[in-house]
Amino acid sequence: MWNGLVGIGVVGYGYWGPNLVRNFANTDGSQVIAICDNDAAKLAVSKRLYPGVVITKEFTDLLKDSRIDAIAIATPVSTHYELALAALKAGKHVLVEKPLAQTSEQVRRLVGEAERRNLILMVDHTFIFTPAVQKIRELITDGALGEIYYYNGIRASLGLFQRDVNVIWDLAVHDISIIQHILDDAPVAVSATGASHVAGAPENMAHLALFFPSSCIAHVSVNWLSPVKVRQTFIGGSRKMIVYDDVEATEKIKVYDKGVTINGTAESAHQARIGYRAGDMWAPHLPAKEALQTEAEHFIACVRSGALPISGGMAGLQVVQILEAASQSIAEQGNPVRLRKKLRPAVRVLSTPEADGRATLDVCN
Amino acid sequence: MWNGLVGIGVVGYGYWGPNLVRNFANTDGSQVIAICDNDAAKLAVSKRLYPGVVITKEFTDLLKDSRIDAIAIATPVSTHYELALAALKAGKHVLVEKPLAQTSEQVRRLVGEAERRNLILMVDHTFIFTPAVQKIRELITDGALGEIYYYNGIRASLGLFQRDVNVIWDLAVHDISIIQHILDDAPVAVSATGASHVAGAPENMAHLALFFPSSCIAHVSVNWLSPVKVRQTFIGGSRKMIVYDDVEATEKIKVYDKGVTINGTAESAHQARIGYRAGDMWAPHLPAKEALQTEAEHFIACVRSGALPISGGMAGLQVVQILEAASQSIAEQGNPVRLRKKLRPAVRVLSTPEADGRATLDVCN
Amino acid sequence: MWNGLVGIGVVGYGYWGPNLVRNFANTDGSQVIAICDNDAAKLAVSKRLYPGVVITKEFTDLLKDSRIDAIAIATPVSTHYELALAALKAGKHVLVEKPLAQTSEQVRRLVGEAERRNLILMVDHTFIFTPAVQKIRELITDGALGEIYYYNGIRASLGLFQRDVNVIWDLAVHDISIIQHILDDAPVAVSATGASHVAGAPENMAHLALFFPSSCIAHVSVNWLSPVKVRQTFIGGSRKMIVYDDVEATEKIKVYDKGVTINGTAESAHQARIGYRAGDMWAPHLPAKEALQTEAEHFIACVRSGALPISGGMAGLQVVQILEAASQSIAEQGNPVRLRKKLRPAVRVLSTPEADGRATLDVCN
Amino acid sequence: MWNGLVGIGVVGYGYWGPNLVRNFANTDGSQVIAICDNDAAKLAVSKRLYPGVVITKEFTDLLKDSRIDAIAIATPVSTHYELALAALKAGKHVLVEKPLAQTSEQVRRLVGEAERRNLILMVDHTFIFTPAVQKIRELITDGALGEIYYYNGIRASLGLFQRDVNVIWDLAVHDISIIQHILDDAPVAVSATGASHVAGAPENMAHLALFFPSSCIAHVSVNWLSPVKVRQTFIGGSRKMIVYDDVEATEKIKVYDKGVTINGTAESAHQARIGYRAGDMWAPHLPAKEALQTEAEHFIACVRSGALPISGGMAGLQVVQILEAASQSIAEQGNPVRLRKKLRPAVRVLSTPEADGRATLDVCN
Repeated sequence: MWNGLVGIGVVGYGYWGPNLVRNFANTDGSQVIAICDNDAAKLAVSKRLYPGVVITKEFTDLLKDSRIDAIAIATPVSTHYELALAALKAGKHVLVEKPLAQTSEQVRRLVGEAERRNLILMVDHTFIFTPAVQKIRELITDGALGEIYYYNGIRASLGLFQRDVNVIWDLAVHDISIIQHILDDAPVAVSATGASHVAGAPENMAHLALFFPSSCIAHVSVNWLSPVKVRQTFIGGSRKMIVYDDVEATEKIKVYDKGVTINGTAESAHQARIGYRAGDMWAPHLPAKEALQTEAEHFIACVRSGALPISGGMAGLQVVQILEAASQSIAEQGNPVRLRKKLRPAVRVLSTPEADGRATLDVCN
Repeated sequence: MWNGLVGIGVVGYGYWGPNLVRNFANTDGSQVIAICDNDAAKLAVSKRLYPGVVITKEFTDLLKDSRIDAIAIATPVSTHYELALAALKAGKHVLVEKPLAQTSEQVRRLVGEAERRNLILMVDHTFIFTPAVQKIRELITDGALGEIYYYNGIRASLGLFQRDVNVIWDLAVHDISIIQHILDDAPVAVSATGASHVAGAPENMAHLALFFPSSCIAHVSVNWLSPVKVRQTFIGGSRKMIVYDDVEATEKIKVYDKGVTINGTAESAHQARIGYRAGDMWAPHLPAKEALQTEAEHFIACVRSGALPISGGMAGLQVVQILEAASQSIAEQGNPVRLRKKLRPAVRVLSTPEADGRATLDVCN
Repeated sequence: MWNGLVGIGVVGYGYWGPNLVRNFANTDGSQVIAICDNDAAKLAVSKRLYPGVVITKEFTDLLKDSRIDAIAIATPVSTHYELALAALKAGKHVLVEKPLAQTSEQVRRLVGEAERRNLILMVDHTFIFTPAVQKIRELITDGALGEIYYYNGIRASLGLFQRDVNVIWDLAVHDISIIQHILDDAPVAVSATGASHVAGAPENMAHLALFFPSSCIAHVSVNWLSPVKVRQTFIGGSRKMIVYDDVEATEKIKVYDKGVTINGTAESAHQARIGYRAGDMWAPHLPAKEALQTEAEHFIACVRSGALPISGGMAGLQVVQILEAASQSIAEQGNPVRLRKKLRPAVRVLSTPEADGRATLDVCN
Repeated sequence: MWNGLVGIGVVGYGYWGPNLVRNFANTDGSQVIAICDNDAAKLAVSKRLYPGVVITKEFTDLLKDSRIDAIAIATPVSTHYELALAALKAGKHVLVEKPLAQTSEQVRRLVGEAERRNLILMVDHTFIFTPAVQKIRELITDGALGEIYYYNGIRASLGLFQRDVNVIWDLAVHDISIIQHILDDAPVAVSATGASHVAGAPENMAHLALFFPSSCIAHVSVNWLSPVKVRQTFIGGSRKMIVYDDVEATEKIKVYDKGVTINGTAESAHQARIGYRAGDMWAPHLPAKEALQTEAEHFIACVRSGALPISGGMAGLQVVQILEAASQSIAEQGNPVRLRKKLRPAVRVLSTPEADGRATLDVCN
């Protein structure tokens, strides 16, 4: 067990980098040492907010700085692999913005490198650290929902079109990491469709179905070209069903005591078999803690204890494999793509990390 | 041109039949002569409301009654073909609840029979007669939306599980008929996925992508097992975008002056190319007229004039072909199914039928 | 205890009368004998729906018909007193649409007449028979909300301007009857403000504050000239708070486990004293039964057993006294008007009438 | 015309002070020189964010600093008068958080002091600088709404209970300043009711009616003890009506082309006179600019040009007079309180300040 502060270097100070810096600056046990970006104006802004932090345009300055134990990467996806590999080779723990890399082959190499060097490799699947998703996972794990029938997510807004990845790698990655976190099972095949409405640009809208060994089916619709912001997820179980609306400021999760009742066997008369059950709705109170704060604490805890993170390299690999398969299926107009052999399971915590991060530490030990 | 009243017989007095009877009873130029159902209790209810109407358990009574010019069929899907065929053979015009029949082969035979006998064959695609869909068609036809990029529909609620058809034939049929009515183009392929969560029952949730020759893509999600009722449709165009929420009592259609602007060519630097445009939202006032009333008037007008209905046999055929292809694709986990040769185009009206039905009469002449 | 059917006559077949007829026609133990209206066209419509019922333009026909035991009055407010008095004098039980009469003096006379003749006099305070209000009453009676701090209702829409009463007598009467039903206490004073925006017409918007002996305060805003329909009620208690939105199709009632916590005494430092408590939200499932059905069953039960109805003459009197005081206060720009001596308490049931009306019968015995 | 930077001192670094500092720091033409608070921890936070700024616990340090031209006051209401008076006497321009002071007498003295010394005295009525309220003012000024019939505002949430003022001085002040800004007319009387539900604390809920010389009536409901956050305003005009919901992230303003039509004179038959008109709804796009930024620019522009601000001392005086009258009316259970002689009209800009603040400068010249 490590007792000193974990020194952090952050590369990329665009949209997400400032959030990483702010949260690591607020996390006990960590200290932001340096910020790297190739835009001098952005560096100047960061310097003004964090006068004690080193700013640099050279990523190698982070690699050489012995006070830096871990590097957080918030650069375009196409640069993730190269930067993460260099960081690992320099002996630094690594936290990479989602998705972990552009191909599963790249992710495999990063995972191997991290394992050989006994370093933490974690991917920033932010949503699994939100109070809402943690509560959903708790309800599913506790059996409150019963057998899970479906996950149905819609994630749409106007912008921001990405250059180097299509909308699946930008938006559906959130749902895939949530599905991975809340369901016990891994998908066996993917069918996806999509379209680009800007000549020469990657797909800006897509629909994605994930098949599981059970009758559970997950579906995700993503869209960069929606007139309104939609962040709706429907989760159906045999006992209860959830509507999770992330656009709502409060009552993000509503749990419905509704469903069907089945009497008799498949041979019975149909009409007599299926009944409908409608009970109360319940919206559990959720703590207000910022997901990235919980995540930063978890990363620091893992760096200090050596435990595998919830969203470690293997979790990142499975997500990227699904994204690869989905992109292939889109090119084939929905033709289903099998997901190869079952992955070595990502190490998973048994209990949801507590809001104060302490349970996370226990789990990591 | 026919001047007397059109005599109507209605078969099936369950969920939808009473609506047909009520609307034909309210339509100038038509008269409900007889109601047929095999449930004596339902017949008794109808008799109490419409004392002057003949009630019978024998469908052949309708066929033999010379006062009956047209038969409206509101029975389970599996009986549509047989009843419609018998009605046509007895020289009656026919209006059939959606979908028109269980297979495209059946529909083709009905279309042929109607043509040979010079009878009206119309399918009850109710939604295309709603003020909301008529306004959407008008906005698209007028060019207000620009090039159509996508149609994205979600139709979900708790129940009613059907015995003889899956959820696509029950719910997605609405969206397919809407798409057919508002878009100029016909789809060339279908990819669909779905699942059943009741052993031995047909699929209760499904997702359906329709590919068009252009970059337009339509997607429909349907679900009999949703904790909440959802009737949301997003339609994206190059100039404007529509959110159509049929659950809303008012403001069902919202038109957004939003979109992307593209500068330069595909070769230009990406970031400089794509901009976002956000303008006003506008919710056109919609008349309150019941869709089925407009539809009944249109059917009567076509019977009297001999004109082809908006939702005639060929429109019904195209919809059933898409449903067949979708069911096949579901069985193959999303494998895309081509839609055979381009259909002989269904006769389409150029202008939206007016609320008072008069324009419809003109069109039919 | 009376065993035969209760014969019903209904006077007024405009907006509300058809609902009364339909519900009494569906109520076991009652039979609609005759319908009276001075509009022949409306009578014709009723005859078509209820061929067995006598129709007449003469109210005296109802008074003279010995098969009629009770008369339901759904005519303009200005006619209530005269018709109800005549009905009572003819020995008929009476159910009057809200408000019971135009003045408290009129109500007092009706109450006296009914008492002398041992007849049921009930006012149609429909909302207290809704599943939503019955659930709210249950939650308050059970102590789930704790001490009641406030009732805050908003009832607005576009139309229907009344000729003979202002908006308080048309809309606020609903809230006043709800407040009377769910709170243990009677108001001691009223302050109201309002305005008319149509020259020569009664007030079309008004605001009404009811003071109670406790710190509880009730406030009602009503408006005939609102661009949107609003039916929102906020009820605050020391333990829980309710938002009741009657425009919602489902989840009409939301119960919030929220509030303030008070530490120390009034002398303590302020900031340390008041804390905020935010817990879960819960929306109880409500049965779908139509309020007027429950109400019709209750009226019939009272007629048969002789028990006092929940919304009897004394309840109607208190409501009209509040309306009178509010109208006076409006004329004086909010000047508070005391409510005279405490009323003889209206007889109140101890338990909420069950959906099936059986508890109501027990209570009435 | 002044050409150098306007030096700003900010006193109070609690809830609102940081927003003032941030916006003045971002405003061209101003420079934050010093921050004063009596809490050393808060000062430390401000120092970290703004290393170049002087921090002090002594207000007199601000008064003595010759680089400081203007002082922004964001302390509890009970301290406003003393601090503002000292600032004016030290020759500083002053911006005071709402309400301007605790009594109209105090405000009058501040207005006199500012006039004698030719200094800017402005009150922070933030809402009148929001894009939403500016758009509403524009629509009313342009005549789009026609004659204004009513303003109906609801402002409620859970917390924050204030110690030194009741809920009217904390929340209704926003609506009163909005009403003052968008309506041409000044109210002539106030009737208000309210209640306190925490022993010894000021009223935590209140309702307030403002009477105007015309038939226009304004009503405001405010509540610190609401389970949900409500920020809804309904504005009715003879031509159009507005629903302004500040809780919405987008489409805050909806303009309804709805209303009543009146035919004939007051003597005509009522039913024939009043008709209802329902047309389209329109939600104008609003710029995203932060209100406090526009306000800071306006304050700086006025300091530089010597022009009277939109929300100057006289506007602040009228608002405080209404608050005083409302508090008196609450104590008298709604008894209406006349507003004394018509105020000398506050100087008002003719056009809405532009988003970029340039029009504001022009207006001030």
